[in-house]
Amino acid sequence: MKDPPAIWPRIFGHEAIGIVESVGEDVTEVTKGDIVVPIFLPDCGECVDCKSEKSNLCSKFPFKVSPWMPRYDSSRFTDLNGHIIHHFLFVSSFTEYTVVDIANLTKIHPLVPPNKACLLSCGVSTGVGAAWKAAKVEPGSSVAIFGLGSIGLAVAEGARLCGATKIIGVDVNPDKFEIGKKFGVTDFIQAGGDKSVSQVIIEMTSGGADYCFECVGRASLVLEAYASCRKGWGKTVVLGVDKPGSCLSLSSSEVLCDGKSLIGALFGGLKPKSHVPILLKRYMDKELNLDEFITHEVDFKDINKAFDLLLKGECLRCVIWMDK
Amino acid sequence: MKDPPAIWPRIFGHEAIGIVESVGEDVTEVTKGDIVVPIFLPDCGECVDCKSEKSNLCSKFPFKVSPWMPRYDSSRFTDLNGHIIHHFLFVSSFTEYTVVDIANLTKIHPLVPPNKACLLSCGVSTGVGAAWKAAKVEPGSSVAIFGLGSIGLAVAEGARLCGATKIIGVDVNPDKFEIGKKFGVTDFIQAGGDKSVSQVIIEMTSGGADYCFECVGRASLVLEAYASCRKGWGKTVVLGVDKPGSCLSLSSSEVLCDGKSLIGALFGGLKPKSHVPILLKRYMDKELNLDEFITHEVDFKDINKAFDLLLKGECLRCVIWMDK
Repeated sequence: MKDPPAIWPRIFGHEAIGIVESVGEDVTEVTKGDIVVPIFLPDCGECVDCKSEKSNLCSKFPFKVSPWMPRYDSSRFTDLNGHIIHHFLFVSSFTEYTVVDIANLTKIHPLVPPNKACLLSCGVSTGVGAAWKAAKVEPGSSVAIFGLGSIGLAVAEGARLCGATKIIGVDVNPDKFEIGKKFGVTDFIQAGGDKSVSQVIIEMTSGGADYCFECVGRASLVLEAYASCRKGWGKTVVLGVDKPGSCLSLSSSEVLCDGKSLIGALFGGLKPKSHVPILLKRYMDKELNLDEFITHEVDFKDINKAFDLLLKGECLRCVIWMDK
Repeated sequence: MKDPPAIWPRIFGHEAIGIVESVGEDVTEVTKGDIVVPIFLPDCGECVDCKSEKSNLCSKFPFKVSPWMPRYDSSRFTDLNGHIIHHFLFVSSFTEYTVVDIANLTKIHPLVPPNKACLLSCGVSTGVGAAWKAAKVEPGSSVAIFGLGSIGLAVAEGARLCGATKIIGVDVNPDKFEIGKKFGVTDFIQAGGDKSVSQVIIEMTSGGADYCFECVGRASLVLEAYASCRKGWGKTVVLGVDKPGSCLSLSSSEVLCDGKSLIGALFGGLKPKSHVPILLKRYMDKELNLDEFITHEVDFKDINKAFDLLLKGECLRCVIWMDK
């Protein structure tokens, strides 16, 4: 298979924090020593999308699952024999040094603890942003979250910050309710019961949740989320990544008659350079809970322990230290 | 086939205007002699939906394609032998006298010409409302309309009133461009050319239309509309009624990555009793173009001429007079 996602060798990793070691000749936005969060979603600041309040999809450097640097479509990595090593999601952070386009870097306040700030590089921002910017959750509203991994929990945290009063978590693992409570989850549904999840949510919310979020990456769950949201105004936000080629088959008549909306959001609809600093400030102001996402921390040499924890479902975020 | 849409005998017709002949004992909102527009979508004014700014789907009397009166699930019509005649869309207007629930009646100013006011009973309201309330078209935006029948033309009219500057009509019939210009259509694409319609729209708008409207009732056209709208913020509104059981198959990854939204709207998202009078005022103030929708007027005895015109695609709206 020669599709970009399977090109080897490459340097993985896309959720990180770093210190600028040096900059290219036209780069003025950051300088040596700055603390930066690399973010897979480009933010050039100049194109119509970056200048618009409505979009977070930079059109100068459109996001793609590319094995190259975004601006040059070339690699900056080689092995000791001079053979190309590919990039991953414009970040490639499982390495001591990486090369990242300035469009993919957000400078942050140097006093934010790095093991917390790195969480905003992808997953937590995506979830919090989905509630805040993509769905625009309103005070007093009801929210249902399908999948309580870190992204789903971050949606709960975002919904809590937006003032949602009923935050329903849905997961196959009942232990997730206790974990979810730390992030604002108020109610829990264990998937797989006799009643469909949508039926339970419709009963719990007297008609359906105002906002539903799919955080697993299964088309069938998107449909369940869509079915769970309130006729007349319910909004379903797609955050999970399904297999390539998968389709969402919605009933035409339901789409027409139910007055619901379906939206997708990369990075939760956040604009990296303007919104991530706001979230970091909310963390420093003790409003946004980041601490509870970190369940493990390991040294870089033990990175495979982190993968084991992930596969066992035993961690939320495992921070990997290059040099503690 | 015993499904509700095919129950016979019944009185068809759902786009109309009338004079109140008498009212039920608890009805205070209208009285004998009032001029009223019957609207298939109930508006009880009391339920959480009718009280919410976000919904137009009355939950006390949910809309359905029913052969009965909404509040009683029974018929008010019989033939001369006492056999039931069924209702249609809660209106049944192809008759000298009908019985309509107060939730389905909007009282209007008696001085609006009846042949104009009746247009707001369904189609024109649906189109204008879709631009105004469902999509919330903004000044300076671009709009693409799939299908320039009366609903599509009404979307154009609504988009024009909202200040859209590029209003692209799409139809198989090239004559529709001249007709469309009367309602604000600025550009035209004849469907069926070498390039896909979405490709042409993306080129014409430098990336895609801000708002796309499907006004034909084909799932495949909804997908083309979705493909035609702008990544990052494009919104596709479904207005057409496809065959029962038809599905919209959207690519999961496109939904996730393109930041677009898909919404459906009955009656264009309008609340019948509060928004139709506003549209009628805009007609009387010479802002909203209703006159050009009326291409034919016939007497009730010639109703089949109206169907012939419709089938031939030779009319927009043919007003049928009971008693001119």
